Amino acid sequence: MNLEIMPVHGIGHVSEGDDLASMIMSAAPWLRDGDVLVVTSKIVSKAEGRLVDVPADGPERLTARAEVLAAETARVVAARGATRIVQTHHGFVMAAAGIDASNVDKTRLVLLPVDPDASARALRAALRQRYGLDVPIIISDTMGRPWRNGLTDVALGVAGLDAVHDHRGEVDPYGNELELTQMAVVDELAGAGELVKGKCDQVPVAVVRGYPTTPRADDGLGARALIRDSSLDLFSLGTAEARAAGLAEAANLPTGTGPTAPDPAAIDRAIAVVGATVAPGTVFTHVTDPATHDQLASTVPGWPAAANTLLLAAPPTPVDPFGLVRFGADVHRLRAALAAEGLPSTLLPPPPGTSATAALAL
Amino acid sequence: MNLEIMPVHGIGHVSEGDDLASMIMSAAPWLRDGDVLVVTSKIVSKAEGRLVDVPADGPERLTARAEVLAAETARVVAARGATRIVQTHHGFVMAAAGIDASNVDKTRLVLLPVDPDASARALRAALRQRYGLDVPIIISDTMGRPWRNGLTDVALGVAGLDAVHDHRGEVDPYGNELELTQMAVVDELAGAGELVKGKCDQVPVAVVRGYPTTPRADDGLGARALIRDSSLDLFSLGTAEARAAGLAEAANLPTGTGPTAPDPAAIDRAIAVVGATVAPGTVFTHVTDPATHDQLASTVPGWPAAANTLLLAAPPTPVDPFGLVRFGADVHRLRAALAAEGLPSTLLPPPPGTSATAALAL
Repeated sequence: MNLEIMPVHGIGHVSEGDDLASMIMSAAPWLRDGDVLVVTSKIVSKAEGRLVDVPADGPERLTARAEVLAAETARVVAARGATRIVQTHHGFVMAAAGIDASNVDKTRLVLLPVDPDASARALRAALRQRYGLDVPIIISDTMGRPWRNGLTDVALGVAGLDAVHDHRGEVDPYGNELELTQMAVVDELAGAGELVKGKCDQVPVAVVRGYPTTPRADDGLGARALIRDSSLDLFSLGTAEARAAGLAEAANLPTGTGPTAPDPAAIDRAIAVVGATVAPGTVFTHVTDPATHDQLASTVPGWPAAANTLLLAAPPTPVDPFGLVRFGADVHRLRAALAAEGLPSTLLPPPPGTSATAALAL
Repeated sequence: MNLEIMPVHGIGHVSEGDDLASMIMSAAPWLRDGDVLVVTSKIVSKAEGRLVDVPADGPERLTARAEVLAAETARVVAARGATRIVQTHHGFVMAAAGIDASNVDKTRLVLLPVDPDASARALRAALRQRYGLDVPIIISDTMGRPWRNGLTDVALGVAGLDAVHDHRGEVDPYGNELELTQMAVVDELAGAGELVKGKCDQVPVAVVRGYPTTPRADDGLGARALIRDSSLDLFSLGTAEARAAGLAEAANLPTGTGPTAPDPAAIDRAIAVVGATVAPGTVFTHVTDPATHDQLASTVPGWPAAANTLLLAAPPTPVDPFGLVRFGADVHRLRAALAAEGLPSTLLPPPPGTSATAALAL
């Protein structure tokens, strides 16, 4: 299988209301069934009128742009300086919600299409109905990557083509079954198209010829299939934002109890982290003998039924009021260290008759 | 400009010590000057002997694999379940350090080439010296993306081609200068090559014909140019890891003072976060009158010279020892909330003669 990647020249300026199907057919009358059409999202946005007026410069422009960005943003993922990595309402994570000021008048900004999969489906349907062509469509845009310099084009919208080629279940020549190999072929096709398109020379469409597509009546799942579900997203926040969230969480640790048998090593680590920097004489004790634990726990006011671990904390003696304040801070530090180990805790008064001044139920 | 992407069939199994240049030339005698050769890293690794023996199955295999992964890992970026996203010694961030068990005997694992840019340079030099061909080389591998399902092929090693096409400074037809557009063309070329290569059918090499390359004596900066510098990496840790790091940081907040004029709104936010859940009667006071501030600060033992902000904290009265412990915990919570706002603080005894029981210098 050889692929051919061809630019489509002569499309020219696109304005709101323009008929992309006819513009593309005029520029590429050589289009054939099975060719994959890679269309830069910007001309789709322009044809669909996804433009907003903004001042050409000055602080008013910055303010207007910030308002547009806020409207296009479902949530901020990371921010540093003027950079904003956000998740759009579509679910895409990208810089500045894909808002673009290039290849448009200085007084306008181009937003992403409202529903790029729907845009792809509409273009495919128009080419089929009016020109009898069965042409899979990819709407592409340029995105950055967190750990690699430089940008690549990827698919925002897809119709008539599966976004992913799933190799799972195939067996390699050595008899190994492939387990994790789902290739995002539409992103690779979008990137291939970018190689022949121009950023500044009015080549917003490329054609990939020779990619094995199956003629199909349906449009498939679209590029939405490429959006990682939030439950599987290990990078839902920038590192600085997540670290600040951890600090903020430490400011309001939920009271609670955790697993019925927390890892004693995790408890020891938490105690060690804090214990290294407390006032000499401060004692944190993990009560491990079941009989002692149950006897002491029964005397602690407010002991939660689910708690199965007791930590006792005693300050250095003698203690003045500020010494107790420092000790209380150290107990909260221990709670934060336990939380960092995934262990919730509850601060309680100490069991009467012990040297402890506070207790933690885990 | 049209591009042609062609698979190279007939390369067959590659073993340690094999001469890739001659294998490729035998399989693709039609190769021409300026063709870009996209070579799957796996055959480079095999030719270079980057294989390790492991048990074919059982817990011994898992243990051996974990040891291999640890050796290939510079640092762990994120972990969940069996998934490990790590930064390799090269600087690439990828799952399992690129270690692969497909297309190899069940008793071996394939590691990434030690220096893929050097591998690319060596292959380019061999083709030039022995066959008189000037062929840019891309060593490719398959990587995941944090926010998009599916994998794509990208460049691990490059020779004879710039990794990035920098459009900065170009002017679009509307007169806007392009500011941020540096395209990682070698990643797009690697992805285009993947479209004609097979995961299971022994097509480890593709040729891209027609991409405008300039004949050049040097090899260029290689794929290392694509590795984002850590100072610019907003996602150096997974969200869970960074959040845990924030909690751990709260367990050992550094004492210190921050900017000379901290944002009063940030201080108010931190006080509000904690103040909503303290015992009734607890008072946090931001001392803003300069004369009062200086007079009080002068009486606080250990007041740091750089500090310019004073927060006073007073517990509800009357206080018993456990009440002071709880109050101390609340003061540390305030310090964590201030840290989440980027404001370091130092816990100090209160100014004599006030109702405060603790002071914070910012």
